[in-house]
This record gives sequence, C-alpha cells and structure tokens, in this order.
Amino acid sequence: MKFRRSERLIDMTNYLLDHPRQLVPLTFFADRYESAKSSISEDLAIVKETFEQKGFGTLQTVPGAAGGVKFLVQISKENARPFVQELCELIATPDRLLPGGYLYLTDILGDPQIVQKAGRIIASAYSEAKIDVIMTVATKGIPLAYAVASQLNAPVVIVRRDSKVTEGPTVSINYVSGSTKRIQTMVLSKRSLTEGSRVLIVDDFMKAGGTVIGMISLLEEFNATVAGIAVLVEAEKIEERLVDNYLSLVQLSDVDLKEKKINVKEGNYFTLE
Amino acid sequence: MKFRRSERLIDMTNYLLDHPRQLVPLTFFADRYESAKSSISEDLAIVKETFEQKGFGTLQTVPGAAGGVKFLVQISKENARPFVQELCELIATPDRLLPGGYLYLTDILGDPQIVQKAGRIIASAYSEAKIDVIMTVATKGIPLAYAVASQLNAPVVIVRRDSKVTEGPTVSINYVSGSTKRIQTMVLSKRSLTEGSRVLIVDDFMKAGGTVIGMISLLEEFNATVAGIAVLVEAEKIEERLVDNYLSLVQLSDVDLKEKKINVKEGNYFTLE
Repeated sequence: MKFRRSERLIDMTNYLLDHPRQLVPLTFFADRYESAKSSISEDLAIVKETFEQKGFGTLQTVPGAAGGVKFLVQISKENARPFVQELCELIATPDRLLPGGYLYLTDILGDPQIVQKAGRIIASAYSEAKIDVIMTVATKGIPLAYAVASQLNAPVVIVRRDSKVTEGPTVSINYVSGSTKRIQTMVLSKRSLTEGSRVLIVDDFMKAGGTVIGMISLLEEFNATVAGIAVLVEAEKIEERLVDNYLSLVQLSDVDLKEKKINVKEGNYFTLE
Repeated sequence: MKFRRSERLIDMTNYLLDHPRQLVPLTFFADRYESAKSSISEDLAIVKETFEQKGFGTLQTVPGAAGGVKFLVQISKENARPFVQELCELIATPDRLLPGGYLYLTDILGDPQIVQKAGRIIASAYSEAKIDVIMTVATKGIPLAYAVASQLNAPVVIVRRDSKVTEGPTVSINYVSGSTKRIQTMVLSKRSLTEGSRVLIVDDFMKAGGTVIGMISLLEEFNATVAGIAVLVEAEKIEERLVDNYLSLVQLSDVDLKEKKINVKEGNYFTLE
C-alpha cells in the first residue's frame, strides 16, 4: 500500500525522534512507504526544515551508498531558556531547604516531563560528540541519565554505593566526599563497561564534586575516558571545586538557612560555547 | 507566519508525542500555526489515522468548549510481540545466570531504547486508566518506571531501602522478602505521595512478590490505592506467589543452574484482557 506524503511525514517524524543518532538509510523509508527515493528526499527536507525552525533538532545527511539520515536533538537556546528559568523558580521555593543546606529536589526529579526536557537540553550539547556510555550514580541521577542517554543513543551504567548479587562481579574504589570529607565507596559491575569507552557523566546535583571525582577514578579502573560531565544543579560558592569542565543547567548561588532563602540562576549551559 | 500543512503535521506529531494524556485545545494549535480550526481538525484526523494504522497510539477527541485532543500511547500487540520475543531471546543467553538463580539484566535495563519500548508497551495497558503516580523501588526498577510514567503523564516516586537527608522526613515499613524470608525495610519520603493517590507499581523483576507486597503496605500508610502492578520479567514456578493481578512482559519458566539453561517466554501481557 502506498502512503500519502502527509502520512509519511507523520510516521517519519515519529520514527526519527525515536531513533536519535542512528543512521537511517533512505531505502529504509522508501521500502516502508513504497515510495521513490526522490519523494523520501523531499519529505526529509521538509522534516529537517521544520525541526530546525521549531528549534528541537536537525537531520544530518550522510551521502553515498552507505549513507542516510540521522536525527540529532538540538534544542535551541531560545527554547531551552524559558524551561530553565521555570526550573530556577521552582527550585527557589524556600520549603525545599533541608537541614545541612541540602535541597529537596525529589518532586522535580520525579517529574518525567521536566527530566526529559532537561535531558534533551543536556544531550543537545553532546549531540555531535563521540559518547559511548552515560554514567551516573544511584539513585537520584538515574532518571536524568536515561533522559540524556535516550537522546544520544548510548547505554547507561549505574554506579552503586554497595554491591548487589544481581550485578555479578564488581570493581570498587574508595573516594573522599568533597563536602563531608568522609571516605566512601563506589561499585560498578565489571561487565557493564567496555575498556576504552568514552563516557559522559551525568548527575542531578554537584557540590564540591567529590562524587564526580569518584566516578572518574572508577573510569580509570576500566581504562575509560571522560567525554563530559553534566549536572542539573550545581551549588556555587564552593571554596574548592574539585572538577572543571562541567556543564550545569541551574546554579544555586546563595542558600541562607536562617532566612530560608535560596538564590537560583541559570547554569553555565548558556555561557559555554 | 503561516504554516503549511506538512509543517503543521510534523510539529503536531512531535508535540503530541511529547505530551501524552494531556488535553490540548484546538485553539492551541490554531494559534501556534495561525490556521483555522477547521484545518487543524483535518490535520488531527490525518495524525490520528496514521498513529492508529502504524500501531503506536491514538488521539482522543474531547468535544465542547473545554475540549481538545489527547494523545494516548497504544502499542498494538502486533508491534509489541516482535519486541518482546527479541527480549526473550536476549534474556535466554546462559551467561546471564548468576549464583542463587538470579539473572544479570543490567545491560538490558541499561539500554534506553529497550526500556522505552517496554515502558510504552506497559503504558498502553493503562493509557485510559486513572493513574496518579508511578511507584518503584530503587535501583533497577527506576528506568522502566520513568519510561512508563512519561507515557502516562504521571510523576514517579521511588521507594528506598534506607533514608537519605535529601529526602526530608520519611515513612518506613518492614516487610518480609518473599524468596529469602528475611525482614527488610522500605522508606518513602513523606512529601512524595499525596493521600488517596491511585498508584501503578512498576518493577524490573518479580520473584515471589515480597517487594511488591512491601510497596503495597507502604501505600496503605499513605492511604493510597494500587491501580496496577507491572513488571518486565516475572519468575514462574514460584511455589507461593504473594501477588495476583499483575502484568508481565516476559516470564522465566525454568532456570537450570546446573545445565546453565534458561527458558524464557512471553509474559501474561498478551493473554490478559
């Protein structure tokens, strides 16, 4: 059965959004819709134009016999900014303050819409980078890591604080927490990471960066490389930041426990190049 | 600027897929594309027809002044079956067997594409049900819970084994593990669940069902109701199953540690009505 252009465009949009960073040969679509390659090319040009104009992504064309088309998520800063500003307002409510200057973010991290949008924005920064794996630490970073991973077509590995029987053999390291200076343990299943992988570290919150440093040490044990570090929220005014070269969507600038005030602003996402 | 039909269809598809179970007024699209409502209605009819024909969802029309259109995920059994069969094959590889009859599923649960597809299939079974919250237990159920939640437009709450400072005040219960018969603890942040919520429990793996029973007891403390139970993999041949009325995508029928053989078949998803 032949498909009309309108049907092709709808199905193609769904298919491409669902297969980010995957090369789809033109013949795949030509077969799927029993249409000529020239029609498919025209369809794809319209899809690309609309994706770019609406600021949610682009299509990359790979020429040649082994070629095809690839969807890359690319949320424009224009689209990202209102979302991040809403997020800042949401975080700035005083009843989020917990003892010790911690913030209650569980409701925000529990909202799949917020997590997915944040994940897409972070993924946009790495959509053309070589990333083999997304790494995070249990528990709170997991949803964001998956949201990023699903846009970068990469698997997620989850570092734990303790080993579980269902993980099989593990590699563990000790590290010093950046803020509390306590020695902690991190464990990763041996099977979960291939040597030489390029890894994007994703987490929900970064204070001094001790946890990220722990993950980096763990990567060394697997001869893997850090391809990037991205966090949803970073705490500013840290005396000694252990990590450089990270990306953040939101920055806490002042947490005043006495006055129950939190100052929240855009992270470095919008200023980094 | 006016939008052509082709552009409207592409953007609409993206928008609707991104906002499942949310009522979108026709005026929203009419304004977005500076088009007449009659054109928007025609567009939506084409989108609905294509979604249904391709077996990934439907549009529900709510008439009247407060009306609009709602995207519901509805993966057809025809689309679900090949995926679940692939999953069965993937799970049946003998090197997944771990001591104690456990299975190594970390790589499968670490693949966002698999998790998203499984989540969509599970969500299809509840797309018209009243679900306020998705509940899971840390750590391995989290990705699947988010995949389901993002399609049902519901927040996720994560039960933990221990309380953390960043969760604020918590409610905890003790329960008996179904397979090991040991007493265990479950903790949920007090703020994370509203009284009277209708909750869909999602987990990666169910043996006797002790963990699920634990979650149900926890729900009682919050005066919340179980709206459903869904797992990716269930272990069959359990002498005493503690839970009825659950949905599974995959069923383990025989785990032979000596022969290193696993028998895996479709779960009850395809036989339940």
